[in-house]
Amino acid sequence: MHKIIVIMKKNLIALFTVTLFVSRACFGQTPVVEDFKTSTTAQPGKQYPQVNSEGRVRVSIAAPQANLVQLDIGGKKYDLKKDTSGVWTGESAAQDEGFHYYQLNIDGASVPDPGSLYFYGAGRWGSGIEVPAHDKDFYELKNVPHGQTREKIYWSATTNAWRRCFVYTPAEYEKNIKKKYPVLYLQHGSGENETGWPVQGKANFILDNLIAANAAVPMIIVMDNGYATKAAEPGKPNTPGFSAFETVLINEIIPMIDSSFRTLSDREHRGMAGLSMGANQTIQITMKNLDKFAYIGAFSGTSNYPKTDAIDPATFMNGIFKDVPALNKKIKLFWLGRGTKEPVPFPASIGAFKTMMDQTGFKYTYYESPGTAHEWLTWRRCLYQFAPLLFK
Amino acid sequence: MHKIIVIMKKNLIALFTVTLFVSRACFGQTPVVEDFKTSTTAQPGKQYPQVNSEGRVRVSIAAPQANLVQLDIGGKKYDLKKDTSGVWTGESAAQDEGFHYYQLNIDGASVPDPGSLYFYGAGRWGSGIEVPAHDKDFYELKNVPHGQTREKIYWSATTNAWRRCFVYTPAEYEKNIKKKYPVLYLQHGSGENETGWPVQGKANFILDNLIAANAAVPMIIVMDNGYATKAAEPGKPNTPGFSAFETVLINEIIPMIDSSFRTLSDREHRGMAGLSMGANQTIQITMKNLDKFAYIGAFSGTSNYPKTDAIDPATFMNGIFKDVPALNKKIKLFWLGRGTKEPVPFPASIGAFKTMMDQTGFKYTYYESPGTAHEWLTWRRCLYQFAPLLFK
Repeated sequence: MHKIIVIMKKNLIALFTVTLFVSRACFGQTPVVEDFKTSTTAQPGKQYPQVNSEGRVRVSIAAPQANLVQLDIGGKKYDLKKDTSGVWTGESAAQDEGFHYYQLNIDGASVPDPGSLYFYGAGRWGSGIEVPAHDKDFYELKNVPHGQTREKIYWSATTNAWRRCFVYTPAEYEKNIKKKYPVLYLQHGSGENETGWPVQGKANFILDNLIAANAAVPMIIVMDNGYATKAAEPGKPNTPGFSAFETVLINEIIPMIDSSFRTLSDREHRGMAGLSMGANQTIQITMKNLDKFAYIGAFSGTSNYPKTDAIDPATFMNGIFKDVPALNKKIKLFWLGRGTKEPVPFPASIGAFKTMMDQTGFKYTYYESPGTAHEWLTWRRCLYQFAPLLFK
Repeated sequence: MHKIIVIMKKNLIALFTVTLFVSRACFGQTPVVEDFKTSTTAQPGKQYPQVNSEGRVRVSIAAPQANLVQLDIGGKKYDLKKDTSGVWTGESAAQDEGFHYYQLNIDGASVPDPGSLYFYGAGRWGSGIEVPAHDKDFYELKNVPHGQTREKIYWSATTNAWRRCFVYTPAEYEKNIKKKYPVLYLQHGSGENETGWPVQGKANFILDNLIAANAAVPMIIVMDNGYATKAAEPGKPNTPGFSAFETVLINEIIPMIDSSFRTLSDREHRGMAGLSMGANQTIQITMKNLDKFAYIGAFSGTSNYPKTDAIDPATFMNGIFKDVPALNKKIKLFWLGRGTKEPVPFPASIGAFKTMMDQTGFKYTYYESPGTAHEWLTWRRCLYQFAPLLFK
C-alpha cells in the first residue's frame, strides 16, 4: 500500500512535469512570478521599469495609437500588450543578474524608455536596467566614508579638442592634505565613454567599500574617454585610430593628473586597467610603457582580439612577450578576468592569450565571474577582485 | 516718371507682402530657412536634432510603422512628415534663444528623442536642445583655467537618506592649497534637481570665464537638491514640504561643506541664490538666517509666489521685512532678476515683491534678461550678472 502511494505520487509529479513542459512549449513562455518591484534604475517617481525575482524586466508605456510596442533587451524583442486605456505593458524572459542596456520599439522607432535612467553604452545615451545581483553588497552605497568623483576638463593638443575625465579621490584625500596617492587609469569598452565606470560601473562605491574595509589602499582612479582622434594635418583628412589614445594618455592625461592631484608618480604607484576595448588598449599601452606602469588589469579583453588562434610570442605585439623572465621581474601584477557566459569570440580569444602566458611562463592572476556575460556585473566584479591587489 | 516707378515699387512690395501673408495664412507656416546645423546638444555622432538661424528645431526619427510622429516643444506639437524609407522629419516654429526641454510623440507615446542628450527638468530625464544665443560667449567652454565639478555624497539624518550635491571648486583651488574660499549655495527650480546648474545651467563655465577675466572672485559653488522630505516618525506618514530643505541646508549641508572644503565660514563669505522654486527657497531661508548669509540672489521667483497682489510688509513672511533699515545694514546684496518674456504669474508676482521693496526702501539690484522666458538662458544670464557682485 505504502509503495503504491509512492509510485502514484511519482507519477503525479511526472504528469505535472510533462503538463508544465507541454504548456510551456505550447505558449512559448513560462509562468511569470508576480513579485515585480520598481527598478533602482527607474527615474525618480516612476513606477516602471520593474524587475522580478526571476530577473524578468517589465516595462509599461502609454501609446494609445500605436500598432506594436516592444521591449528590446538582451538581443531579443518582446511584444507588449495594450490595455483598454492605451497603455502597453509586458516583460522579457529572465535576464542575467547585473546591468543591461535596453530600449523600446514603438511602431518601428527605437527609443529610450521614458521610465528609465539613461546611460552611455552601445554607442548611445539610452535606457539601462539593473537586475539585482546576489552579491550586490560590494557595489552598493553604504554607510562608509565616501570619496568624490570630480569632472576634470583639459585641453588636448594631440586631438585639438577639449576632453573630459572623471577622477575619483578617496574619502581621506581631503583630510590628509599632504599625503600622495597611487593612481589607477581605468578604461571603458567599445561604444562607451568616460561616464561608464563612474555611473553604471559604480567604481566609486566599489572603492569606497574596499577602502573602508581596509581591503584596498586609498587610491586615485582616473576614468577618461578611450576614443581619441589625432588632429588632422592641414589639408589632410583625420586619421582616427587606436594609437591616438596612447599619445593622449602618455603625453597629456598622465602629466595633467600628476600636476593637478597629489599623486605618487613613479611606475610602482601607477596602474592601468580596462574592459573589452579598454583591456586591449591597456595591454597595448602598458606593455610598451613599462617604465610608467607596474600594475595591469585586463577585463574581458586581450590584445589578440578578435583572433582566437594560437599566439606566437616571438612575433605577437612586435615580440614584446619574448623575454618573459624580464617582464615577470618588472610587472608587479598582470590580472586577467572575464565572465563565464561571455559570447564568441571572447572565451576563445582570451583563452588563446591565457595559453600563451601559460606556455611562456608569464605570471598572471586569472578570474572568472560566475554567470555573467560581456556586461557590467562582470567588470564590477573584476574591479572588486583586482583593486585589492594594487600598490601593495 | 520717377515718382511712378517709386509708386510701382511700393505697390510691388505691398503685393508681395500680401501674397506672403496669404501664403502664410493658407499653409499656416512661414518658409523655413535651410541653414540647419546639428545641435550642440545632439548625442555624439548623431545628425539630429538640428537648429537653424531662425531658432527652429528640426528632428528626425525612423518609425516605419507609425501613424503620427510629432515634435513637442514650447507647449506646441508639430507634425513630422514621413519619407518613403519610413523616416519622419520636421521642424518647430522659431524658439527663443537658449535652452529648451522637448520630447517626441510617437502614436501617442511621449518619449525622449534618441538623437539628443538628456537633461533633468520638467520632472523627468528627457530631451533638451540648445538654440545658440547671440551672447553665448559668456557660458561657453573657453581657453581659460577650469575648475572641477565634484560629486559629493553625504548622509542626511533629517531625511534618513543618502543625498548628493555637486560642488564647483575654482581652478586655483588645487594650487593655493592653504587659501580658503567663500561659498555660494545655488539652487535649481521646480521639477529639476542638483544636475540643473552644473549641466544645462553651465555654472562651471560661467564662473571659469568670470574668474579668468577677474570679474568675479574665486568661489566654491554648492549645487544641491531642493527637494527634501522629513523622515517619517514611527507610525506616522511622511510630511513632505518646503521646510525640510531649510533644515537639511542649515543643519547638514553647510556644516558638511565647511568641514569637507576650505571655506570661509562667516556670513560675509556665504551667499545663496536660486531660480524659481529655488528663488522662493532662497528668500525664505536667507531672510530667516541672516546670521549665516549676507548675499542673496533670486532668479525668476520670489516668496509671494504665486500671488500677485500687493504685499503688506507688516505681515508678509511673519513681518520679516518690517525693519528695513536693519535689513539694509545687514544684507550686503539682495539681487532680483527675471526674463522679459516670463509667463503669468511671474511678472506680476515678482513685480509685487519689487513694489514692496521700493515702498519700504529695501535695497536691491534688479535685472531683466532680454527676450527670454522662464528658462535656462534667463538663469545663466542671472548668474553671470550676479556672481561678479559677490564677496567684494
